[in-house]
Amino acid sequence: MSAARIRLGMVGGGEGAFIGAVHRIAARLDDHYELVAGALSATPKKAQRSGRAFGLADERIYSDYATMAQAEAARPDGIEVVAIVTPNHLHAPVAAAFLRAGIHVICDKPVTTTSKDAKKLLALAKKTKRIFAVTHNYSGYPMVRHARQMVRDGAVGEIRVVQVEYPQDWLTEALEKTGQKQADWRTDPARSGAGGAIGDIGTHAHHLAAYVTGLELDEVCADLSRFVKGRALDDNAQVMLRYAGGARGLLWASQVAPGNENNLRLRVYGSKGGIDWRQEQPNRLHWSPFGQPTQTISRATGAANAAAARVSRIPPGHPEGYLEGFATLYAEIAQAIRAARPGGPKADKAAHFPTLSDGIKGVEFIEAVVRSSARGGRWVRLPR
Amino acid sequence: MSAARIRLGMVGGGEGAFIGAVHRIAARLDDHYELVAGALSATPKKAQRSGRAFGLADERIYSDYATMAQAEAARPDGIEVVAIVTPNHLHAPVAAAFLRAGIHVICDKPVTTTSKDAKKLLALAKKTKRIFAVTHNYSGYPMVRHARQMVRDGAVGEIRVVQVEYPQDWLTEALEKTGQKQADWRTDPARSGAGGAIGDIGTHAHHLAAYVTGLELDEVCADLSRFVKGRALDDNAQVMLRYAGGARGLLWASQVAPGNENNLRLRVYGSKGGIDWRQEQPNRLHWSPFGQPTQTISRATGAANAAAARVSRIPPGHPEGYLEGFATLYAEIAQAIRAARPGGPKADKAAHFPTLSDGIKGVEFIEAVVRSSARGGRWVRLPR
Amino acid sequence: MSAARIRLGMVGGGEGAFIGAVHRIAARLDDHYELVAGALSATPKKAQRSGRAFGLADERIYSDYATMAQAEAARPDGIEVVAIVTPNHLHAPVAAAFLRAGIHVICDKPVTTTSKDAKKLLALAKKTKRIFAVTHNYSGYPMVRHARQMVRDGAVGEIRVVQVEYPQDWLTEALEKTGQKQADWRTDPARSGAGGAIGDIGTHAHHLAAYVTGLELDEVCADLSRFVKGRALDDNAQVMLRYAGGARGLLWASQVAPGNENNLRLRVYGSKGGIDWRQEQPNRLHWSPFGQPTQTISRATGAANAAAARVSRIPPGHPEGYLEGFATLYAEIAQAIRAARPGGPKADKAAHFPTLSDGIKGVEFIEAVVRSSARGGRWVRLPR
Amino acid sequence: MSAARIRLGMVGGGEGAFIGAVHRIAARLDDHYELVAGALSATPKKAQRSGRAFGLADERIYSDYATMAQAEAARPDGIEVVAIVTPNHLHAPVAAAFLRAGIHVICDKPVTTTSKDAKKLLALAKKTKRIFAVTHNYSGYPMVRHARQMVRDGAVGEIRVVQVEYPQDWLTEALEKTGQKQADWRTDPARSGAGGAIGDIGTHAHHLAAYVTGLELDEVCADLSRFVKGRALDDNAQVMLRYAGGARGLLWASQVAPGNENNLRLRVYGSKGGIDWRQEQPNRLHWSPFGQPTQTISRATGAANAAAARVSRIPPGHPEGYLEGFATLYAEIAQAIRAARPGGPKADKAAHFPTLSDGIKGVEFIEAVVRSSARGGRWVRLPR
Repeated sequence: MSAARIRLGMVGGGEGAFIGAVHRIAARLDDHYELVAGALSATPKKAQRSGRAFGLADERIYSDYATMAQAEAARPDGIEVVAIVTPNHLHAPVAAAFLRAGIHVICDKPVTTTSKDAKKLLALAKKTKRIFAVTHNYSGYPMVRHARQMVRDGAVGEIRVVQVEYPQDWLTEALEKTGQKQADWRTDPARSGAGGAIGDIGTHAHHLAAYVTGLELDEVCADLSRFVKGRALDDNAQVMLRYAGGARGLLWASQVAPGNENNLRLRVYGSKGGIDWRQEQPNRLHWSPFGQPTQTISRATGAANAAAARVSRIPPGHPEGYLEGFATLYAEIAQAIRAARPGGPKADKAAHFPTLSDGIKGVEFIEAVVRSSARGGRWVRLPR
Repeated sequence: MSAARIRLGMVGGGEGAFIGAVHRIAARLDDHYELVAGALSATPKKAQRSGRAFGLADERIYSDYATMAQAEAARPDGIEVVAIVTPNHLHAPVAAAFLRAGIHVICDKPVTTTSKDAKKLLALAKKTKRIFAVTHNYSGYPMVRHARQMVRDGAVGEIRVVQVEYPQDWLTEALEKTGQKQADWRTDPARSGAGGAIGDIGTHAHHLAAYVTGLELDEVCADLSRFVKGRALDDNAQVMLRYAGGARGLLWASQVAPGNENNLRLRVYGSKGGIDWRQEQPNRLHWSPFGQPTQTISRATGAANAAAARVSRIPPGHPEGYLEGFATLYAEIAQAIRAARPGGPKADKAAHFPTLSDGIKGVEFIEAVVRSSARGGRWVRLPR
Repeated sequence: MSAARIRLGMVGGGEGAFIGAVHRIAARLDDHYELVAGALSATPKKAQRSGRAFGLADERIYSDYATMAQAEAARPDGIEVVAIVTPNHLHAPVAAAFLRAGIHVICDKPVTTTSKDAKKLLALAKKTKRIFAVTHNYSGYPMVRHARQMVRDGAVGEIRVVQVEYPQDWLTEALEKTGQKQADWRTDPARSGAGGAIGDIGTHAHHLAAYVTGLELDEVCADLSRFVKGRALDDNAQVMLRYAGGARGLLWASQVAPGNENNLRLRVYGSKGGIDWRQEQPNRLHWSPFGQPTQTISRATGAANAAAARVSRIPPGHPEGYLEGFATLYAEIAQAIRAARPGGPKADKAAHFPTLSDGIKGVEFIEAVVRSSARGGRWVRLPR
Repeated sequence: MSAARIRLGMVGGGEGAFIGAVHRIAARLDDHYELVAGALSATPKKAQRSGRAFGLADERIYSDYATMAQAEAARPDGIEVVAIVTPNHLHAPVAAAFLRAGIHVICDKPVTTTSKDAKKLLALAKKTKRIFAVTHNYSGYPMVRHARQMVRDGAVGEIRVVQVEYPQDWLTEALEKTGQKQADWRTDPARSGAGGAIGDIGTHAHHLAAYVTGLELDEVCADLSRFVKGRALDDNAQVMLRYAGGARGLLWASQVAPGNENNLRLRVYGSKGGIDWRQEQPNRLHWSPFGQPTQTISRATGAANAAAARVSRIPPGHPEGYLEGFATLYAEIAQAIRAARPGGPKADKAAHFPTLSDGIKGVEFIEAVVRSSARGGRWVRLPR
């Protein structure tokens, strides 16, 4: 193993999981991490099977995250950071255990099921001075970085309208009744929290809009629906957005829109121009300066700005995708972890990975949307 | 002149007008009409110049619509139908004058500036038994017809979500202050009515959604904005929609979205599949049966249904555009006019041109949206 | 009838025809013509039925083009121009008859079945001083005009590579054996001439490339195929092009490429940038200045040049299509006909409609391609 | 380090190189390899800097590939496979050195600069029984696998037409004169071989077409151009293709086509349908069964076949890109290496990575094209 690699542990992400594999590839892609320990499943046999498949030493395969946190903290070669890829309801207790053990945390989103829990974590993270990253991974795409920088540079002018949508179709029918693992926990309030589509993908849309525009969300007015019979959580969410400063937005998240896979799209319109970006074709951004032709700005070309170039690996026209964007967050987190070591390098000021404070805003957004909808679609203010 | 052509008059549409020229081409395209009279401008010199340019006989060039209505009604070869292409505030009085003179009416949208006026026209049209068509012209596109038929045939299943948007960018800056004629009256409440973007293009989006889905709109919750300083009417409209039966929708109309020309798009998602249609590429419709690949259905192919084939002129791959769609309404209205003649042919049951009752719903929609927004974004019921 | 309309006759284009209807709409669209006479079919009953359907007076319905030419020439209100929309083999004799009668000619492409015939027509047209237009209609699209002007303005730099293709799929199976009229004559050398796909659509591709680039074609090397068993003419044509000055090209025309309707596309690459235009989405042109982002230039915007604006009817985002492009040629021809009248207006120098000399080049191109392929794919020089 | 990882060495790919980094990520992505040795540069200081940056032990950093081959072969923990990512002219001697040392080879393309050299390597590989993979990496894309399988399953019918193109624009100007490393050697016959664009990217296009269609290429007729003044190798290549069995094709490779990055596209038309795939949007394949609407088949959906599913990592709508496709080849090669170990697992019959025999065909293709063009564009037969 390269001496320079950061020692990584994982909680969740064993057999049958989806996002765990993504985290592992993301960690490996730029060669910053080595997975050395895991509580990959709460079922010991599964945990062992998965751990061995991933090349873990037997003594570092755990079936209990609390044990893992303590044991790893006690080892001289213990993990420096843990990736938490369990269903949502476990994020908070697992993260707390590792923070207390002095271990940095990379946590999937939504960071917790309640904002109260999230704030407790924030206090703990501050106290323990540990890094707490949240994988709102779409912020890792180079052309998202480009868009964010354009807004900051004033190219878009004063922002007026934000249109963000994240339609999927995989829950068009009652997939959860078939026992499919991903559908099962995502439609269960006990494991997913109060939000269905709004929590699973709406938060991504919310974060993407916030990340690119830098706008503060003031109020939401929402209509959540459960179109599939017997479903306990929303599978379609329509939300009107009012931003501080007067910008207006619409957010649509759906899991019942046939023909859509992960069709996340962000459009931002300002007094000087408009931006259009789609996750399914992430290497290109459409930029329409008012009164001039729309330009297609391609990743890694001369027209891509420094913020995009910084996180681009290969030449334009050779597409980078979802895993690369995810890996960019892991690479930035790795730099931060190294910087946090005694005598480590300086932290990279240009890094942008989402942290716990972004995660809290995501949970507060879910809560406000759920409340608005429960009140029949009344405007609800976001906490400040 | 072909004996079979219907004698057409026009009010408005002289020099510098936009939509008048569109109506004239639409009337000509399928050879059903001959323009023979007009009050093309209220300024006599302009009216004369325009009338001569369009080949009208001098005695049938008017500068006053009331005179025109009476004079034409008195001629044995008088017009059978009038096209009203003035700014909105004149639609009602002009239409009333021609209805009273026993002349059929084709009127641009929104049909009036208040629903009260529209209802009076309806009473008058019923009394005089005249045809009253409203040019919600996007319903003339073949693939819109296809989509409507698919919904009726049950292919889409139970409709759950409607996403309709009509962004433009031409009013991103204060064009009305430059004296540009189109911007001037459209941003003036006295001539445009209570709606800006919502009236000018939002009604098109509203009608398109209603036309294709057949759903009845129950409630709206709206946020209208005036982003350009000094503008008296909304230039951006975001509206949440609740349909009878439980479907939910979002409607966005904007005139300040750089990079958008007439980017009308309708997406309809049901329990069995999803439909996606864009006005700027109108010859293709994307159909996503749930669980199967998205299909691109092309106008005039074997995959296009009878409703589309009926209004298609040329083979697939040779694009038909905006004028052709508009002409389809004129062709259907022509058939209805002929059917209304003593001894005329039977009316074509397959025809779908929008009429005054559609126009009234459009005005009621504008009123409900304006009211909702004025109340800070509260839900407002549509009249039944 | 407007006094200003040009009196138009038509040969061919009766029941069951495709392109005749297109010519009639194109003639009507901008209100420059009135169809007043026709030999719409060689079968008298069909000719009469079609003529009456189009509103012709009975005495001006002919079933014999020679009679029509003489009779119309003898009338004081006789036609000024004839549109020839018959199968290819009749173009030459019909055109000659009308030229001799002093009547202008608008002829479909390819203008004749042999270049020898075409040259005879040229001599006759010169002698009779009649206008002879050939409907290579794709040159009527606004963004094709834009592209041509860009090349002339030097924006593209020295042209290096021309990629032009026109794939269709309608002859993937032996449609001609079903009696389908369009397939029947197009696959018959006696009526179509020596070229199948290369004659029917390859000439359009050839003309489009020549029209936009202004390059002179020096040599071709071709491979013609007949993929459908029993077919007498090529249904797929691949051609390498060498232009004077060193530019190189590839032309592909196919009628057996499933998924393609009329997928004509032209790409031109020069030392300064690249142009990309597709007929199926004709309102937009992609322009890639070297080293900068690709721009999408939209018809009727400020970015569209004067050559495009001149032939644009409606605002951007409202698509103009095939019929409008065709109508632009008819409008330009109308202006030329009026200019040719005694005391007529000056001819419009900005007009670009294709004439007999373009038609001759098209036929010479077909002949060179057929010869090259017959020789096993050897380079053949075009005549100068 | 995971015990299961294959020990990998690399020749070339140090500072400033492009493709070396791609190979390293590809090797890492699915966790099958560990880079443990390298001759990353012939300049010792550069080799050392690069080696340390990649985490190599000092004693396994070489500046001479011959030394490396011998030293690694002598170690008990020596490398099992070497990745060769040097300029083309070094492929043959480096590969020979490692084969002789009993080490498997992964070599970039074109595999050698002459087919003679390639055949010698083949003899050596057979003798030493070593695996010799060639990274025609586009064959690793899931939807390319899907397309290949469709052809094999007969869905496309008898193949008639193949259109393959690979345009780029990066050599539109004389970049090689600026000292840019990639341009420098690629335009130099001494290091690149006889082909410029045709060797660098034309071979990729050639391989992709062969891989998907399974057709044997009989003859080529080519026109190579050098558009940039002073350039010694072709920067634009147009090639007509004749396949055994009667199919016809066109191949275009260009490095002077502004607006194109790595715009590799393959279209295959058969008697039953057409396939269209583009490298820049690799997760979707367009499939047009004749007479039915075009379908967009998306990676990892139910509509993607087993050949695609086998090499797909994440759900549809989350794009996989270039690195993932490249990694698929590395994963398949890893399986083959393990299978070649004494007592290793069975070789996976479904694996498709390109080998030396594919590489030889690529070099023969370059030679035939160069010869055809040198003869003024005459047909040249490929060796059998």
